[in-house]
Amino acid sequence: MKDAPVIHSLMDQDFYKFTMGQMIFHRHPKVPVEFSFINRSKSVLLGKKVDLGQLREELEHIRTLRFTPQELHYIMGTYEYGSPMFKFDYIDFLQTLQLPEFHLEERDGQIELGFAGEWAKATYWENFGMSVVNELYNRQLMRGYSSFERDKVEANGRLRLGESLDKLAKYPGITFSEFGTRRRFSRNWQDYVVSVMKEECPETFKGTSNTYLAQKYGLMPVGTNAHELPMVYSGIFRDSDDVDPAYSQKRMLADWDNEYGQGLSIFLPDTYGSDWFFKNCVDADMLRRWKGSRQDSGVPEEYAEARINEYRLIGVDPRTKLVIFADGLNADRMIEIYTKVDQRMLTTFGWGTNASNNLGFKSISIVVKPTKANGYYVVKLSDNIEKATGDAEAVERAKRLVGYTNTFQEVCHS
Amino acid sequence: MKDAPVIHSLMDQDFYKFTMGQMIFHRHPKVPVEFSFINRSKSVLLGKKVDLGQLREELEHIRTLRFTPQELHYIMGTYEYGSPMFKFDYIDFLQTLQLPEFHLEERDGQIELGFAGEWAKATYWENFGMSVVNELYNRQLMRGYSSFERDKVEANGRLRLGESLDKLAKYPGITFSEFGTRRRFSRNWQDYVVSVMKEECPETFKGTSNTYLAQKYGLMPVGTNAHELPMVYSGIFRDSDDVDPAYSQKRMLADWDNEYGQGLSIFLPDTYGSDWFFKNCVDADMLRRWKGSRQDSGVPEEYAEARINEYRLIGVDPRTKLVIFADGLNADRMIEIYTKVDQRMLTTFGWGTNASNNLGFKSISIVVKPTKANGYYVVKLSDNIEKATGDAEAVERAKRLVGYTNTFQEVCHS
Repeated sequence: MKDAPVIHSLMDQDFYKFTMGQMIFHRHPKVPVEFSFINRSKSVLLGKKVDLGQLREELEHIRTLRFTPQELHYIMGTYEYGSPMFKFDYIDFLQTLQLPEFHLEERDGQIELGFAGEWAKATYWENFGMSVVNELYNRQLMRGYSSFERDKVEANGRLRLGESLDKLAKYPGITFSEFGTRRRFSRNWQDYVVSVMKEECPETFKGTSNTYLAQKYGLMPVGTNAHELPMVYSGIFRDSDDVDPAYSQKRMLADWDNEYGQGLSIFLPDTYGSDWFFKNCVDADMLRRWKGSRQDSGVPEEYAEARINEYRLIGVDPRTKLVIFADGLNADRMIEIYTKVDQRMLTTFGWGTNASNNLGFKSISIVVKPTKANGYYVVKLSDNIEKATGDAEAVERAKRLVGYTNTFQEVCHS
Repeated sequence: MKDAPVIHSLMDQDFYKFTMGQMIFHRHPKVPVEFSFINRSKSVLLGKKVDLGQLREELEHIRTLRFTPQELHYIMGTYEYGSPMFKFDYIDFLQTLQLPEFHLEERDGQIELGFAGEWAKATYWENFGMSVVNELYNRQLMRGYSSFERDKVEANGRLRLGESLDKLAKYPGITFSEFGTRRRFSRNWQDYVVSVMKEECPETFKGTSNTYLAQKYGLMPVGTNAHELPMVYSGIFRDSDDVDPAYSQKRMLADWDNEYGQGLSIFLPDTYGSDWFFKNCVDADMLRRWKGSRQDSGVPEEYAEARINEYRLIGVDPRTKLVIFADGLNADRMIEIYTKVDQRMLTTFGWGTNASNNLGFKSISIVVKPTKANGYYVVKLSDNIEKATGDAEAVERAKRLVGYTNTFQEVCHS
């Protein structure tokens, strides 16, 4: 029997693709952008492990998908953020959206996979590229397994999930959302995990970043923005910010502010390093107005201390400000961070790979990132130099421009 | 085995309840209104045919229902009318809506069923009251049927539906929507009919008035407004319009215009008689701006001729204006009307009882109508005096005020 397609709906992606997608559509729809698939787990020769013919078929299938009327109603009707977020022109655009073409080949045993096109359309490849490669890779891990062997894998996954939820249950102050779409073991497994969280943790489980599952289970669709925005903006405004990357970052923040206001006012500061960001791109007024930030690399506890000090310096009570921790978490780390922060700030947790892909297999660390925008290389440094992406020279240039001194380094499995 | 509840979702009602509902919520939420159940088929002693205990249980069950997040997304996200229609405050209101209490007893063998309360909440009883009584009545018709006897009833329904669709298929210019929620044979049967129409008539079937089924099948949710608005407005503005019912009608039209503009600009003229309405409540500017009207009583062909003349008199090409015919239609009548109008106007058809309740049983003619608003009796005359509703004296008074002379009379089964 042939497997069902990995992606069956254009909603089966992170909600932030739509919040970002609308802003892109309104402000920079035609900017030429290139997204590249990157395998950080270099020892895994993905080009050999994954059948490229099958991968091509899956990606072609995604190009045949369109948003259904129900899905458009769902997106357009988002009411969970305090005011209507999506405008009619954007829904109109989504109605006819087809994902642009992709480039796929094997190179040195690895997968070379790229998505080039107008930003407003190419942006939707990010999640799909990752979900599909991950699921095909995971299927290959179980190739030849008997039915009972598969049962045991799932049984293992259930017990691991149960163990994590039991640990968290001891800390009713820990709230979390499911963020694992891109790195899930499979579509079905993520669906199961989300359904369990809804059932077992009605008070502490706050929603999922997966738009399809948010609709299916009536959960809050969770998400704001990603590094994609600051990265592509650095290309768009490169002529203006040749020696001052802060220029493009401030433009991005202002556009976001204008598009969504208070509802989605969450900083994602680590594109060029969080210290640099908070010193150079944000003023006291923004810090006061915005709800908080998302911590996606570096050391969570240090990040929280830095924010607490910063807020205090400008006379803001840190207990009124939020940090969303979302970097490679598991239950133990959530508990450690929560305990360390000790209610000196509002906290919540985005639970990714360890939630949706925790069945005993070692997961691969892959990403799809913008590598070029408006003709320029674009990069991300992050607070963990292992997570840096982009052309090597461009990365060095960016480090020089922002005076990057961070030495924290941690191999990431997510 | 116990039957499933007739109503399982607050979306299982006409879309116009939401378009009207928002305007009511925005403008006159607290007006005290009474809706009454009326059985026009007086020879059928409904109070004996329907188990009142069961009816009470069904109505109580509806009071336990709430809108789900998915349903709120769906309503809020309505994009089919050219611009966003629903405002955030209304969705906020629907989030916590519980239907108000009802009054139910048997009187002289008939069902006495009333819904009194604030207009913004009581309005949602209309459809449910009718759908529930109809389905309980229809179940009773088949009480004691063997499984095969039930099969034959459905087989009959399928063939009748097929015959109608075959007739319509010869006239590809006839477009229609399904309007049969309130008088359906059963929830399941309406679901089936809509699914067949979607499958068999992809070009000519334009949507359904049932919001739940519109979502389920990705169809256009069809609807604008009902007599409820002009009737309740006549109560609200009674002090101002004691001798001039046109005053309240004009207020209603102006409010509707302000709430929705072009998207829902469809007149429903027959509350006090269509001739009177077009002479007294509408000016040439409105006739020019509004898309058209819905014909719900009287003689459709005569109605069309009157509109054609009217539009011509003010220099408007009638071929640019729409009539939605929606009064007790079947395939033969649609074809007759379509042929007679002969493309001198835009036409489309709302297909009700004959679509959703055509399995060989004689259907009962029931309605739920506002009978009091703001402390005054309110009435509907219509272009068929058999369809008049309201306190007898109040009906006579209204006839006198508008100079009602219509003598057309036709017993209605819908």
